[in-house]
Amino acid sequence: MELIHGGDWAAYLRQYGRMAVDFSANISPLGMPEGVRTAAMQALQMADCYPDPRCWELREALAKHLQVDMEWIVCGNGAADLIFRLMLVLRPEKILLLAPCFAEYEQAARLCDSQLLYYALSEERDFRITSNILQWITPQVSALVLCEPNNPTGICTERALLLRIMEKCAQCGTMLIVDECFIDFLADPQSHSLQAWLKTCPNLIILRSFTKLYAMAGLRLGYCLSANQALLGRMQRCGQPWPVSTVAQAAGTAALRERDYVQQLRALIAEERPFLQESLSRLGCRVWPGQANYLLFRSPIPELGALMQQRGFLLRSCANYRGLTPADYRIAVRSHTDNVRLIRSMGEIL
Amino acid sequence: MELIHGGDWAAYLRQYGRMAVDFSANISPLGMPEGVRTAAMQALQMADCYPDPRCWELREALAKHLQVDMEWIVCGNGAADLIFRLMLVLRPEKILLLAPCFAEYEQAARLCDSQLLYYALSEERDFRITSNILQWITPQVSALVLCEPNNPTGICTERALLLRIMEKCAQCGTMLIVDECFIDFLADPQSHSLQAWLKTCPNLIILRSFTKLYAMAGLRLGYCLSANQALLGRMQRCGQPWPVSTVAQAAGTAALRERDYVQQLRALIAEERPFLQESLSRLGCRVWPGQANYLLFRSPIPELGALMQQRGFLLRSCANYRGLTPADYRIAVRSHTDNVRLIRSMGEIL
Repeated sequence: MELIHGGDWAAYLRQYGRMAVDFSANISPLGMPEGVRTAAMQALQMADCYPDPRCWELREALAKHLQVDMEWIVCGNGAADLIFRLMLVLRPEKILLLAPCFAEYEQAARLCDSQLLYYALSEERDFRITSNILQWITPQVSALVLCEPNNPTGICTERALLLRIMEKCAQCGTMLIVDECFIDFLADPQSHSLQAWLKTCPNLIILRSFTKLYAMAGLRLGYCLSANQALLGRMQRCGQPWPVSTVAQAAGTAALRERDYVQQLRALIAEERPFLQESLSRLGCRVWPGQANYLLFRSPIPELGALMQQRGFLLRSCANYRGLTPADYRIAVRSHTDNVRLIRSMGEIL
Repeated sequence: MELIHGGDWAAYLRQYGRMAVDFSANISPLGMPEGVRTAAMQALQMADCYPDPRCWELREALAKHLQVDMEWIVCGNGAADLIFRLMLVLRPEKILLLAPCFAEYEQAARLCDSQLLYYALSEERDFRITSNILQWITPQVSALVLCEPNNPTGICTERALLLRIMEKCAQCGTMLIVDECFIDFLADPQSHSLQAWLKTCPNLIILRSFTKLYAMAGLRLGYCLSANQALLGRMQRCGQPWPVSTVAQAAGTAALRERDYVQQLRALIAEERPFLQESLSRLGCRVWPGQANYLLFRSPIPELGALMQQRGFLLRSCANYRGLTPADYRIAVRSHTDNVRLIRSMGEIL
């Protein structure tokens, strides 16, 4: 089984007999909040029963937290589960994807025999969408996927353009899928999210994750927002009825109370990202100005990943991203200590 | 969202403000084994990272436990996850299902626009498959699903006939999917399982679950066995790469060491099932001779489920099973205390 993602600590452990410092998965370096861990632990007492298939308590907490109708929320076994369900329900004849973007969308669309169109992002424009994307959105395009911020670039679409894209999608009857899994790492997430448009845009679908912000990737929890309740209902029926474990439901509900944790995490990322950016540049790497908790850079030597792996660091090779090269890597922003160790080790190679 | 399964304690809790004694989900009444709970708790320490997508440790433990090649195992987010993946990969043009049988197969097959054929089990023959099923298996039938024991009847197919079915499937190129999720509750599971035929039958697929035997339904864990590795690989790629949480992987690995627990559970079921059978008969119910940890019976009054619900007991109404009636119910075999309470309460109604 070949993996197309980062975070493969298990393969590293088997190969090297030790754990790596994992810069290949974009998870909060603060670890799982204590309140989340405690809630997960308590939930084990109830885990002999089936999970609540409707995720009532979690959805109520989310609805309150996000200020949306709870009927607009469907939860999944990680956002990745919802990506597949969404594609299975939409079965888009033609889908417009960005290149590069998160690989799961392509994989899920292929499963539905969709015709894939790629809007190539140009590295010269920092992989930013430009207004010519509007010409690509036609009534023949059933769905468009945007990641805000994009993965692996960390780049956001300019707000005004994002709204024009949304408008064009509405005109063309194109489903607009906006992956906001990393939006919480932006300086001002609320001003960039399209959540406020859910009510007026039934063709808008937003995907979010608990995984990265609350360091709970191993528990699997994501959710989907849309005012199109018929669509959400079909998403629930197109897979098993108990995708979200008892533990994940309790952990997610508890996570929403972790406001201090989130502030602390945002402050850390805001401080460490520029540090990594500058350090990488100083080492001769080309670094793109990502806004999330990860950075895309081009190494002077393509074999950097393999060499760093021997030294105990996992980087995310971007060789399998459309439009990127084997010298392109994505790294997570971790704690200052880890970041310093990474840069020092890279310095010995470059 | 309408549910087609039992175990809906959450809806009960919301309606009545208290928990029910849940006879509608077929879960071990001994609760989650302590060793499993401890392993799950320890796994939370690792749950900030993504789960191992290949479930290496769990599959190794399973391979040793079952004495099969670990490459013949794929794990899922409950057996239900694997049912959907299997159907998505097979996309059977025509599929032969039993009526009644576990509803998830029909739902998953519908998702793939399969033509559904139903082999009607006759209540007069105790819902047992008879040899005329062999005529139904033709090269035009892409897949056949059997549940051994069947759900909700608890009835097994006669061993000799099962082998003839397997042979006919091999001749016709029909995929034979055998759901063995409740096989561990039989008096002699090994002598009924088709596992020994995996090697010679690449068209044989066996599904199993940890949910019921180890009372860990809330953690979601099931697995699929087949010597057809290409098929298993496609099942992994047709959904998200991290279906099995860190917690479920650790819990599953620990569960396989719980041999005493399983013996104790089997002894309990062997004692309590006849008690329930006799008690239900005495109350004027027709009870079918199920062999698993649940029983199917026909109540003298169809509204039994609603009345029992008011008294704090959840029964599984079988009204939505093909070939059953609104008076048919399935109940789990629980502890003696619970079973006595159930029978006493039913006695007051009937």
